[in-house]
Amino acid sequence: MARYIDIHCGFVGATEQQFRAAHENRLAVEDAEGVRFERAWLDQESGTAFCLCSAPSREAVLRAHERAGDPAGEVYEISIEVPS
Amino acid sequence: MARYIDIHCGFVGATEQQFRAAHENRLAVEDAEGVRFERAWLDQESGTAFCLCSAPSREAVLRAHERAGDPAGEVYEISIEVPS
Repeated sequence: MARYIDIHCGFVGATEQQFRAAHENRLAVEDAEGVRFERAWLDQESGTAFCLCSAPSREAVLRAHERAGDPAGEVYEISIEVPS
Repeated sequence: MARYIDIHCGFVGATEQQFRAAHENRLAVEDAEGVRFERAWLDQESGTAFCLCSAPSREAVLRAHERAGDPAGEVYEISIEVPS
């Protein structure tokens, strides 16, 4: 399993309730794609969201987000994390 | 204190040792700007880094990164985090 950070730009104007609902949708598709969503952050002003997850591949991350209804714009594979 | 995620694009070709050294440089300037760097992630393939921090303002985040020698390209203020 590798770890990924992805960026979404589609949350302009989203409320806290909407963002939490989007995260629940992600959790609901985790098993189907073998992805585990760990954390998600939202900057409401810009509508930018970030998700930190573990997954078997970049494609699995993309598929999981599509299934959940919020496609990821960019997916970055984490090779180093500090503190480790 | 608010929380921020920032993105850096200048780590193309950086080794693990270089990325860890960059993080040590950030920790060394925390007190001067009142910033606390919590985690940092690097995608070595694209040279993209992400830092998660707490800070009194966006400007403090920018100043801390400049002092540390790796200016942040983008800074996002986190208004919602899940799980909370």
